[in-house]
Amino acid sequence: MSIRYGVGLVLIAAAGGAGDAAPPAKVVLAVHGGAGGRPEGGLTAAEEKLYHADLESALKAGLAVLRRDGGSALDAVQAAVVVLEDSPRFNAGRGAVFNRDGRNELDAAIIDGRDRKAGAVAGVMRVKNPILAARAVMDKSKHVLMAGEGADRFAAAEGLAVVSPAYFWTAHRWEQFQKRAARREEREKAADPYPKGTVGAVAVDRGGNLAAATSTGGLTDKRPGRVGDTPLIGAGTFADNATCAVSATGEGELFIRSVVAYDIAARMKYAKAGVRDAAGAVIKDLPADAGGVIALDKDGVVAMPFNTEGMWRGWITADGKVGTAIDPD
Amino acid sequence: MSIRYGVGLVLIAAAGGAGDAAPPAKVVLAVHGGAGGRPEGGLTAAEEKLYHADLESALKAGLAVLRRDGGSALDAVQAAVVVLEDSPRFNAGRGAVFNRDGRNELDAAIIDGRDRKAGAVAGVMRVKNPILAARAVMDKSKHVLMAGEGADRFAAAEGLAVVSPAYFWTAHRWEQFQKRAARREEREKAADPYPKGTVGAVAVDRGGNLAAATSTGGLTDKRPGRVGDTPLIGAGTFADNATCAVSATGEGELFIRSVVAYDIAARMKYAKAGVRDAAGAVIKDLPADAGGVIALDKDGVVAMPFNTEGMWRGWITADGKVGTAIDPD
Repeated sequence: MSIRYGVGLVLIAAAGGAGDAAPPAKVVLAVHGGAGGRPEGGLTAAEEKLYHADLESALKAGLAVLRRDGGSALDAVQAAVVVLEDSPRFNAGRGAVFNRDGRNELDAAIIDGRDRKAGAVAGVMRVKNPILAARAVMDKSKHVLMAGEGADRFAAAEGLAVVSPAYFWTAHRWEQFQKRAARREEREKAADPYPKGTVGAVAVDRGGNLAAATSTGGLTDKRPGRVGDTPLIGAGTFADNATCAVSATGEGELFIRSVVAYDIAARMKYAKAGVRDAAGAVIKDLPADAGGVIALDKDGVVAMPFNTEGMWRGWITADGKVGTAIDPD
Repeated sequence: MSIRYGVGLVLIAAAGGAGDAAPPAKVVLAVHGGAGGRPEGGLTAAEEKLYHADLESALKAGLAVLRRDGGSALDAVQAAVVVLEDSPRFNAGRGAVFNRDGRNELDAAIIDGRDRKAGAVAGVMRVKNPILAARAVMDKSKHVLMAGEGADRFAAAEGLAVVSPAYFWTAHRWEQFQKRAARREEREKAADPYPKGTVGAVAVDRGGNLAAATSTGGLTDKRPGRVGDTPLIGAGTFADNATCAVSATGEGELFIRSVVAYDIAARMKYAKAGVRDAAGAVIKDLPADAGGVIALDKDGVVAMPFNTEGMWRGWITADGKVGTAIDPD
């Protein structure tokens, strides 16, 4: 819908968003809150404002880190994602969707572009901020990816905040889950679009280091144990100082099969594409309505292509100029 | 050691292996049984013969599929990996290593190069053949990767053979685990080489279609929930008719961070490298003793580079000419 109503969209962005409709030449941090259209039934202007405010808070939390002496891109993307995980409005952390068992299984990954050190968790159910668990896997274990109960135990042993499953219960996700479950029969046949509320961040620090982080609750009504692209380095999350930082959102299965995040980096590395061409080409090759990515190179050039109705996204410059948007530019 | 004793190695290959020491120009199926040297204390000639026999059985099982009318590369790699999973000698299926809890958590992935449809499981503990569970995820779910209890439940519901955890108990792995646990303190500090007994297969069928499959028990004494590169499409397993089929074995964390399997394909796609140059370059970029890969293109050109002491591997031609080897060519 949004593609056909470009003028209306600019108005929406001006009313609900902060700043320009398209990012400037030099961005230090970008975030996304998932690809896809607005929820069924739409959003009121007041509700929409809350989403923009969350994106803006995440950007500012990340920028505060980048402005500190020695503030790293790695710590900045983590700080931005924590804000989005703590919001009930995105499908990550607090606002995660329910799996087919009516439980919340969360995935997250973080990667440092300096040396591609990375950490990720899949299917955690008790750690409050999955992105912090991913960071702990990176810093405190010799592993990159830990899944399920083992990952929850590890996070708890590392002293991370653990919550009761009730923490992840939100009325709108529960309602969404119940509707999905009721429609499961038809849905299994039809290829209806997934809800996509994954969150993510990419950043570049003063030292030219890149980092990326992504966090999600996965698919509403997913089979228990399903892992999407988010915690898979190269699929949903990637960063390498030599190329770019990428965080993806969309139909995880398609993103895994196309190794989307690393494919963007590979096009830059081997085909000498710029970040915008590389990211644009990768999204263009995906089936319609698959999702989108945010990708940032060391010069602050940001790409935010998506092939869905919209993508919840924002960017910020070193001097604090913020922009947020949902609809296409 | 083996690098310095090239002549001795040829003798070993001639005594214990079947056929030539290096693969011919046109291979239809290749397998590996992990990178790394022989177990501590070495192997007797009789023991070593069993490993070669397993590799040969796997190759022949795969070839039998390829020779059938319409026999696909996908079914061939699956058949080959099932043979290696059923052997107690490799770190996959029956012979899987123990995690830190003294339990066996298994990972596997399979991918069809025709359309990159893929399936994978991580951390399963009950399904007898994890590669069949991976195939079921590919064929019977909309997902690519399922982990833990959810994946075991899914496999059981799909009618796959389920075993008691005792099935995965083997004396040599248990002994290996106990030694590791005893040495954990020092091991956590030192970067001693991992045991690497992952198995995998790559194949090309008469239609020119590629496929890859990999299966593993992971690292001895790994933290519960740790997932390595094996079940991650693009890291340890990848296939695309446009480039190549890849199955990797080694220090999973390094392979994840370098997106090894897809990096080989990307060098072919974007830098126009041949499969041997591409695979060789990717392994060369890894730290010493990281592991190896088997990679096959649609013309039957096979690459089997590794930077460990050895890699258990084998290949077969359309007319059934078999070769197996452990040490460098």
